[in-house]
Amino acid sequence: MTGRFYGVGVGPGDPELITVKAYRVLKETPVIAYPKKRRGSRSYALDIVESYVDAHAKTLVGLVFPMTKDATVLAREWDRTAQTVAEYLVRGEDVAFVTEGDPMLYSTFIHLARTVTDKIPDVTVTAIPGISSVTASASVLGWPLADGDETVAVVPATADRERLKTLLSLHDAVVLVKVAKVLDVVLEVLEDLGLTDRARVVTQATHQAERIWTRVEELSGAELPYLTLMVVKK
Amino acid sequence: MTGRFYGVGVGPGDPELITVKAYRVLKETPVIAYPKKRRGSRSYALDIVESYVDAHAKTLVGLVFPMTKDATVLAREWDRTAQTVAEYLVRGEDVAFVTEGDPMLYSTFIHLARTVTDKIPDVTVTAIPGISSVTASASVLGWPLADGDETVAVVPATADRERLKTLLSLHDAVVLVKVAKVLDVVLEVLEDLGLTDRARVVTQATHQAERIWTRVEELSGAELPYLTLMVVKK
Repeated sequence: MTGRFYGVGVGPGDPELITVKAYRVLKETPVIAYPKKRRGSRSYALDIVESYVDAHAKTLVGLVFPMTKDATVLAREWDRTAQTVAEYLVRGEDVAFVTEGDPMLYSTFIHLARTVTDKIPDVTVTAIPGISSVTASASVLGWPLADGDETVAVVPATADRERLKTLLSLHDAVVLVKVAKVLDVVLEVLEDLGLTDRARVVTQATHQAERIWTRVEELSGAELPYLTLMVVKK
Repeated sequence: MTGRFYGVGVGPGDPELITVKAYRVLKETPVIAYPKKRRGSRSYALDIVESYVDAHAKTLVGLVFPMTKDATVLAREWDRTAQTVAEYLVRGEDVAFVTEGDPMLYSTFIHLARTVTDKIPDVTVTAIPGISSVTASASVLGWPLADGDETVAVVPATADRERLKTLLSLHDAVVLVKVAKVLDVVLEVLEDLGLTDRARVVTQATHQAERIWTRVEELSGAELPYLTLMVVKK
């Protein structure tokens, strides 16, 4: 019998924002795979896991995800990562891959589940939803994302300027993810649309290292961590 | 000392999808307010609460929310609802209002927090994020909402046809909430855009009464429950 493959959302940073279901699945699953950072830095998701389960009683499998843009290398490295997971599954062991936020929203689980399924077509894949940084940011800001007839979009800030303008104009709220590297461009777009004072920047929402900026124009030129997003609410 | 006012997201329906933090706040808070249905039907949110806390040890406050479109009656009824909550808070008792899904996404908590704050400007309001039916539907369908450069929008299906078409054309994924009453219009829009086979309908995601429709065209003329949404993913 092939093992089950779980994608477990462990929430945005506060260990208490894990669900009871994620907690149970982590308790019951013998093999826990997690995204391993290259430079020896700690995995956020693994920190959360370790606050709930006895890591010594588990097989912990650190997965390094390919970062290259070379398609051949990328395919080969993903194949190797999927193979690591597949070996446990074909032996009948259940594997839980832990992911920050939600497994169905900008998570490495999406591609990992696809490559694992390519290798083991009969594998049962189950996603356990988690609180995403998108939802968590709304709570920490005290800003509703949408109410009544309002609409909200979640958009990578790396989209081109025209697309950003279109989406910011069309929606009542926009959450810009991956904003750190393109912050100055985004600040210009906000200024053009007169939305600068309707924006907030949140880094590591709900984590103990959480930071919130209410005067986003002061961030021009700033270097922010990868896990930074911006909420724009009209 | 004024009590604290919590908006506690209890998730989409599966009681296990409550967070550890929501569970703790419900345990610790003496007064639990919940949305009370008019026709004697059970409150979803209250069901979830009762599976975790001893209801007899709590003060349970059922709040009936105004449904009228008459602005004067609406304001008066909201005022009365907010007053019910405010009376506990001014006596120094903490109140947790439980809400399905997430308190910052189409939740009665948004307006309730506003009206309570109007009455008690110094009250501390804290939102505890929850898994929304939007995220939960992605997991139960096994459909990622967004990955890489993709964008996703959450849109009330009651928007006019042109707006629906614009948003469905612009985004890689759209989650249409409140779809039950306007399903036939939405089906026509999907047909016009050639997206019928890219849509799924989910009712009460993760609840034991959950239903999923993969052939949405068969739903033409159907009467679906209020807690129904549609995911369109290209």
